[in-house]
Amino acid sequence: MDIALYPGTFDPVTNGHLDVLSRACRLFDKVIIAITKNEAKNSLFSIEERLRLVQENLVNDYPNADATTFNGLVVEHANDVGAKVIIRGLRAISDFDYEFQMAQMNRLLDDNLETIFLMPNEKYFFTSSSLVKQVAHYTVKDTGLVPLNVLKALRERLN
Amino acid sequence: MDIALYPGTFDPVTNGHLDVLSRACRLFDKVIIAITKNEAKNSLFSIEERLRLVQENLVNDYPNADATTFNGLVVEHANDVGAKVIIRGLRAISDFDYEFQMAQMNRLLDDNLETIFLMPNEKYFFTSSSLVKQVAHYTVKDTGLVPLNVLKALRERLN
Amino acid sequence: MDIALYPGTFDPVTNGHLDVLSRACRLFDKVIIAITKNEAKNSLFSIEERLRLVQENLVNDYPNADATTFNGLVVEHANDVGAKVIIRGLRAISDFDYEFQMAQMNRLLDDNLETIFLMPNEKYFFTSSSLVKQVAHYTVKDTGLVPLNVLKALRERLN
Amino acid sequence: MDIALYPGTFDPVTNGHLDVLSRACRLFDKVIIAITKNEAKNSLFSIEERLRLVQENLVNDYPNADATTFNGLVVEHANDVGAKVIIRGLRAISDFDYEFQMAQMNRLLDDNLETIFLMPNEKYFFTSSSLVKQVAHYTVKDTGLVPLNVLKALRERLN
Amino acid sequence: MDIALYPGTFDPVTNGHLDVLSRACRLFDKVIIAITKNEAKNSLFSIEERLRLVQENLVNDYPNADATTFNGLVVEHANDVGAKVIIRGLRAISDFDYEFQMAQMNRLLDDNLETIFLMPNEKYFFTSSSLVKQVAHYTVKDTGLVPLNVLKALRERLN
Amino acid sequence: MDIALYPGTFDPVTNGHLDVLSRACRLFDKVIIAITKNEAKNSLFSIEERLRLVQENLVNDYPNADATTFNGLVVEHANDVGAKVIIRGLRAISDFDYEFQMAQMNRLLDDNLETIFLMPNEKYFFTSSSLVKQVAHYTVKDTGLVPLNVLKALRERLN
Repeated sequence: MDIALYPGTFDPVTNGHLDVLSRACRLFDKVIIAITKNEAKNSLFSIEERLRLVQENLVNDYPNADATTFNGLVVEHANDVGAKVIIRGLRAISDFDYEFQMAQMNRLLDDNLETIFLMPNEKYFFTSSSLVKQVAHYTVKDTGLVPLNVLKALRERLN
Repeated sequence: MDIALYPGTFDPVTNGHLDVLSRACRLFDKVIIAITKNEAKNSLFSIEERLRLVQENLVNDYPNADATTFNGLVVEHANDVGAKVIIRGLRAISDFDYEFQMAQMNRLLDDNLETIFLMPNEKYFFTSSSLVKQVAHYTVKDTGLVPLNVLKALRERLN
Repeated sequence: MDIALYPGTFDPVTNGHLDVLSRACRLFDKVIIAITKNEAKNSLFSIEERLRLVQENLVNDYPNADATTFNGLVVEHANDVGAKVIIRGLRAISDFDYEFQMAQMNRLLDDNLETIFLMPNEKYFFTSSSLVKQVAHYTVKDTGLVPLNVLKALRERLN
Repeated sequence: MDIALYPGTFDPVTNGHLDVLSRACRLFDKVIIAITKNEAKNSLFSIEERLRLVQENLVNDYPNADATTFNGLVVEHANDVGAKVIIRGLRAISDFDYEFQMAQMNRLLDDNLETIFLMPNEKYFFTSSSLVKQVAHYTVKDTGLVPLNVLKALRERLN
Repeated sequence: MDIALYPGTFDPVTNGHLDVLSRACRLFDKVIIAITKNEAKNSLFSIEERLRLVQENLVNDYPNADATTFNGLVVEHANDVGAKVIIRGLRAISDFDYEFQMAQMNRLLDDNLETIFLMPNEKYFFTSSSLVKQVAHYTVKDTGLVPLNVLKALRERLN
Repeated sequence: MDIALYPGTFDPVTNGHLDVLSRACRLFDKVIIAITKNEAKNSLFSIEERLRLVQENLVNDYPNADATTFNGLVVEHANDVGAKVIIRGLRAISDFDYEFQMAQMNRLLDDNLETIFLMPNEKYFFTSSSLVKQVAHYTVKDTGLVPLNVLKALRERLN
């Protein structure tokens, strides 16, 4: 069984993430969303909340997806869960530098793991968790960029 | 009357900002510089100081320009002042990703507002408020990147 | 009356062009699509055909738009028709270098003309006339990137 | 069986192509290099020669790879050979615009086909068929960017 | 004596080229402008004319600069003239991909030659020979982007 | 004697830095690594530790290199040590905007100083001090991106 790992902070998960996930789910037997702590930034949601917000979206729509949390190196977590592929979304506005740096670093750490890049639907080429949070401070409007449970959680937390 | 909003942190206003402003003033009946708090960063100048530094430059040279401060969403402030256009400067070194994200987000929030991008004079293609501040810590030299009242304020604050 | 010029090759006009046009039409009293010969490339459609394909789209949906052809400098044509603004679409995949070069050159030639950049709907961030033509060689499928009269013209010409 | 298509001009195949191929071969049951005519450019090698230069490299080292030629749309050829994935190499110096345009166009033509991007070894981040050809006009030196049979073919053709 | 080679097509030389040259002349004992044929494109000026247009500018203002023509590999010409450095201008609008490809290829061909990149004055960040030629077809206006002898030659050739 | 200054934070020095240094050492009589405090970020190593980690690498392999620390403007430190050139590494993943801004600002502050950009070996196109530190939190593996004394210092500090 081919397992792929889709790592990230997911603070919170957006429809852009779920679009990439749905594409990965068609390519691999199992896709695991792996939520990391992101020590560099303060997160809006705790890692438990972020996991729950992801899981609530997986239940019905992504039968071959799963979600975990991890602390440490992506490559080690990939090995722990038996993944041979790392998934990354590739937006027009990706931080290519960061993505290339991470992909090469992960290759240096474990050459058996391959990073593959998928392009989300163009609707989500501008979607980022941080902008979604920034805007949610000021409005309850639904811009269609996050799933409903995330919209609700943002409203409860920020307004 | 066509009103355009030129939002930003303006901490402090630079000659690059004023160059974009002068171009916008030729295109619209009224252009309003809208200064926001920028919660993400500590500002060097208070919002009142930033407003004053802008206003002192508008008095004589920009008869159809005005300045305000706001807190919250750009699109709401644009509606409050009756603007139908958002102005952004487009430098070779712009953070295009951020600009595109913001423009699309603002469009999702209010599709009647259009963002237009103007290119400053090439002299200011490298001018950023943050670099101006960084350098002013160490020198009183006038590099021609800020108006005189800002140069004076930087010297008083930083040297 | 504020007149804007939207110059280009339009070989053929796409829905991305029309999306930019519709935004410009909300900002200016009149917007003129100005079709140039593009001596560097062989065009698929003659300049008369390109003009007709544009005009057929303007009739009903863009009451304050018009179309012309020209040969020579954009700034001279802008002056001929009384335009004070040049419109350019700004896609994530724009050739920024070319756009910046052209905008500065036009400014050097006539400093009273301002170039403004508008962002199309994200659906058309990837739409280019040349890719549309390339694909039309091989399929009659409608991908939604060109208006119906252009789709028909491409089928007649290429299949 | 999961089949992936790796389309391109391959005029000629380089070690960068083979590096991407080897990564794809670890991810999919079968990977098919699909050589297209590239009507836009004159090729140095005929499509038969390009096919042979690829095939000679597959024999021993890539047991689950194959090579074909095609004329027309990538998505149609992918369907003909039963591929559900299109492979593209993603170099730091990729023409991202072109890659994004093609990926979206292929998605519009067939939403069941997914394009995935793989990053070659950094040794080949600068390798392009056209530069390899350009240099081979003037020197027989082996820069390590192409396999030996291609080096030999370039020498015979160009020196 | 440290000799640097500044290779290019120079069809025709622009003030941007001369600005880079003046910077290189301060760093090295001798700087040689090396004009290549550029087989890929039709040039407007013959290689003899291009050489003359460069040389006329060197006479008075660049005492430690010289100009040659060459055919073949840059690295071989550099060795022929005893240069240990290749100079390239780095504009905001450079074709970085091409520059990086060439720099690495030249390094693979001769690891003793180093490519260094210099940034021209911002006035010339948008100057390219091809745009200069394109505009000169239609106007005799002096935009300040080329030296006077080139302006005169363009007028004689194109108007 | 031609002296070049290679300024940066060097927190810690990487093999990418040393690769650029070795290239600069072939071009100039003396190259001085100038370590700055970087007030904007917390450093992992103190400025004394960073200096020591650099110096330990210079002793045997870079006879014409030296290292200093400074506080303030790069251009002033360059003048203090008699440097007429500033060296910067130019990676595919460079922050070009920042590099261009700094280069122009330094030119405005002192037009006699020239910034030159060198390209490291492609092995180090993805190497950054911050990613090296981030990974060293979790693993003692040697990825070949830093010299041995830095690897040891990272292990002692982070594991």
